[in-house]
Amino acid sequence: MTELQQLLTHCQTRSNDVLTHWLDTLPSPEQSLIKAMQHGVLLGGKRVRPFLVYATGQMFGASESDLDTPAAAVECVHAYSLIHDDLPAMDDDALRRGKPTCHVAFDEATAILAGDALQTLAFSILAEGRLSADAEAHRINLVRELASASGARGMCLGQALDLEAEGKAVDLETLQRIHNNKTGALIRCAVRMGAYAAGEKGIACLPELDKFANAMGLAFQVQDDILDITSDTATLGKPQGSDVLAEKSTYPALLGLEGARQKADELYKEGLHALGTIPYNTSQLEVFARYIIERNS
Amino acid sequence: MTELQQLLTHCQTRSNDVLTHWLDTLPSPEQSLIKAMQHGVLLGGKRVRPFLVYATGQMFGASESDLDTPAAAVECVHAYSLIHDDLPAMDDDALRRGKPTCHVAFDEATAILAGDALQTLAFSILAEGRLSADAEAHRINLVRELASASGARGMCLGQALDLEAEGKAVDLETLQRIHNNKTGALIRCAVRMGAYAAGEKGIACLPELDKFANAMGLAFQVQDDILDITSDTATLGKPQGSDVLAEKSTYPALLGLEGARQKADELYKEGLHALGTIPYNTSQLEVFARYIIERNS
Repeated sequence: MTELQQLLTHCQTRSNDVLTHWLDTLPSPEQSLIKAMQHGVLLGGKRVRPFLVYATGQMFGASESDLDTPAAAVECVHAYSLIHDDLPAMDDDALRRGKPTCHVAFDEATAILAGDALQTLAFSILAEGRLSADAEAHRINLVRELASASGARGMCLGQALDLEAEGKAVDLETLQRIHNNKTGALIRCAVRMGAYAAGEKGIACLPELDKFANAMGLAFQVQDDILDITSDTATLGKPQGSDVLAEKSTYPALLGLEGARQKADELYKEGLHALGTIPYNTSQLEVFARYIIERNS
Repeated sequence: MTELQQLLTHCQTRSNDVLTHWLDTLPSPEQSLIKAMQHGVLLGGKRVRPFLVYATGQMFGASESDLDTPAAAVECVHAYSLIHDDLPAMDDDALRRGKPTCHVAFDEATAILAGDALQTLAFSILAEGRLSADAEAHRINLVRELASASGARGMCLGQALDLEAEGKAVDLETLQRIHNNKTGALIRCAVRMGAYAAGEKGIACLPELDKFANAMGLAFQVQDDILDITSDTATLGKPQGSDVLAEKSTYPALLGLEGARQKADELYKEGLHALGTIPYNTSQLEVFARYIIERNS
């Protein structure tokens, strides 16, 4: 296993344990609502956002247990967004990470409610979860960051822009705006929450971290678009070519496959440059940056 | 106009102004996502939950501007829940407050996203909105209260239980559990947030306020069930008899119409009794309690 695979696997295990703990605090575990929430959250996934919380916070000296709370919260928001994005009225996807999507495994009403309740759970976690004594003063900032990144100023706006763009030719600027909101906002949020949960040292580096996260958010999406063309369904865990089928604008469509690869590489370098200005050990985030543009699923 | 109508009208106007302000802070006002959020929030409605925040907080000496933040937040959660409850996969309602529901006025995808983003907005409001200096220390408690009442421990669980009970005969205990979660949790939350936003005096009275709010939450639902039978579509702003059509269990179905009226009256007295134990001027909440069981829409 590579260094990054080890880091990611460790972070996945830890995130899953923390998320399982929170799901176990809910009443009525026999309810299909709760089972659908578990299905949505524990289906697997790379846990990129928790990883970014842990890697950023640890850079400033926070322990893993200081970071469990924001890591679990951001993943709940991500999981809810996937459940809702997969709905028939949205992207109408039957497969996610190689398994039936929430509305297929349960039903549409339950999937809508499970997404709703996972969003709420994210804020319960931020309000109730453990933080370090240093970070306690910033608890409300974590709420503000997550809300700001998730709603009509961030992720939901991005999804609305994406739906609007379907079947239309959009230019590079519009595509960038879509992804900056749809996926970029929550990636930036994960990094920022890691910094807040680490206290003053992390907060002092927010401007540089934003630059890193902005580049990574876009690079992540460019690579996603590339993989939709070059990978296969088994590796992706979702139907290969689904962007083309949905007539979605993508970076390869606008820049060509080679142009998209160049773009991803430029963003990678931009991210590394931003890390170079941070006076702490940024090696975990560097490894992550390389993973983003080298991953095949 | 009666005293209560004056109070309610004043509170509606104030809530609408505050909510309009928050919606105006969102970027991209031309986006149908934002228009759908406005449609859902500003469609009208009695603003029962903001009223409870204002009436409770003022009882302990808070000013209206000290209470705008929790009042707007709880109404955003209520509005999001209505948008999602009306969806075809849920209650499939075309009419709400006499106007087209969100997915009819826009489309399903936009309605799902608008509901999602309204939930998020509620937490942005709590994180960013004005509070009194006394209440600042309780800001995170407002987040905890709202999250706890809205998700899988409250409102979403209630809606899931309600969907599960459709077309089935349920007993009184189950019906009570459904409504205690589906509508009761958010009504109790509104009262509790009013107390938190008023600071220590309010917080000291939380146990008595809970008793009042629990009785009111149930009374509200019993009266809703009664009105579904005795009122007409024009007065209700939604199709009269829709509970019967949807084969929903109701209080009149279980207790008879007269039994349901007696139940509402008992709950009214229970609420008044709880108010009697609170050493402040509870007149606004008393007027509200009477309104709950006397309203005709």
